[in-house]
Amino acid sequence: MAPEKLAFVGGTGPEGLGLAVRFAAAGHPIVIGSRSLERAQEAAAKVRAKVPQAQVEGRVNQEAAEAGDIVVVTIPFAGHHDTLAALAPVIGTKIVIDVVAPLAFERGQVKALSVPEGSAAEQAQALLPEAPVVAAFHHLSASSLMRVEKPLEADVIVCGDHPPAKLRTMALAEQIAGVRALDGGPLANSRYLEEFTAILLSLNKSYKAHTALRIVGLAGGGRPPSR
Amino acid sequence: MAPEKLAFVGGTGPEGLGLAVRFAAAGHPIVIGSRSLERAQEAAAKVRAKVPQAQVEGRVNQEAAEAGDIVVVTIPFAGHHDTLAALAPVIGTKIVIDVVAPLAFERGQVKALSVPEGSAAEQAQALLPEAPVVAAFHHLSASSLMRVEKPLEADVIVCGDHPPAKLRTMALAEQIAGVRALDGGPLANSRYLEEFTAILLSLNKSYKAHTALRIVGLAGGGRPPSR
Repeated sequence: MAPEKLAFVGGTGPEGLGLAVRFAAAGHPIVIGSRSLERAQEAAAKVRAKVPQAQVEGRVNQEAAEAGDIVVVTIPFAGHHDTLAALAPVIGTKIVIDVVAPLAFERGQVKALSVPEGSAAEQAQALLPEAPVVAAFHHLSASSLMRVEKPLEADVIVCGDHPPAKLRTMALAEQIAGVRALDGGPLANSRYLEEFTAILLSLNKSYKAHTALRIVGLAGGGRPPSR
Repeated sequence: MAPEKLAFVGGTGPEGLGLAVRFAAAGHPIVIGSRSLERAQEAAAKVRAKVPQAQVEGRVNQEAAEAGDIVVVTIPFAGHHDTLAALAPVIGTKIVIDVVAPLAFERGQVKALSVPEGSAAEQAQALLPEAPVVAAFHHLSASSLMRVEKPLEADVIVCGDHPPAKLRTMALAEQIAGVRALDGGPLANSRYLEEFTAILLSLNKSYKAHTALRIVGLAGGGRPPSR
């Protein structure tokens, strides 16, 4: 797989930054997007600090999405709808990987927000009808991602309705050391992935941990029998 | 922990039967409940066939719930509301472990059903206000449970608002060889557990597998720092 240029819309938060670091380490050119050019450039400098050989730049979201071959969405859910609506013309038919989990924090508990479209990823698909939208990477701990010298121990479950985009995302995921990618079915399943993030955050709090997920019981290392 | 008598309401299905087999093997007296006495007794015979030393009997749901120290709910979601409403007087203040995932199958895909109370377990709690209701065991494969000679490789995430009931359920779960129990937070989190079952079933279908879940990233074998 050629190293696609990955644009992170809202890439200054911990999850976007962590993924950017891992994909920069895997040799992908990275564009960190933010509403603020200054914060985007600061985040790009953080990626470069972790991965000295990184090809990474900071841009405003619009320019980042325009520059990327694949657009990774890592904005807080509060800005999800309006940001993607504004970016629709520049995203066009590009692959969109939605990492957003619509969560709120209430009296010390995490709670999944209800999304009219079903999930953040389905909202993205509704706003970007020409783009193949894939949901993935919800369950990777941002702090584990940032420790780029250490392989992860995690499965990335990928949901989507466009098989080529899903397979490309799965291949991307497996460029992160220690990650196994699994086909989680159609985009309609993305809600269950997004909401399960609430369980992992709850476990993180109770156990003072940075949890991730492994699926057990898959024969043959998790290759679908049809591939 | 003394071996509590476990009553399985709707224990003739694969999940109830599998759990009954494992808990019979752990030395708990088991009562399999069903709407039909005959099917309850047939299921009890299946448990005895797997675990010759089992103390197991089949009863109608009402008598099973009356006989049990702890009531495990393993009925299809379609019967969940009405069955529990009818059993409320005999369940009283007993611990209720709800294993039900409200799922439907549509055009080959699994889909989570929306439950007015939030989740099956929260519906149980609404119907059984005096009982401490706990949600657990959603992610164990029924066919793996039935292979009683083989340890599982799985985490059981337990949600509930009553700490003693939750801890008792966690201790029970760890009587199944290979299971680690984890505190998944309040009962309000149970929806995320129940719905994630849709992802596991989707993976089972794509990969022709019997999947379960492991949480990684927990230091100290998953003991909360507070215990």
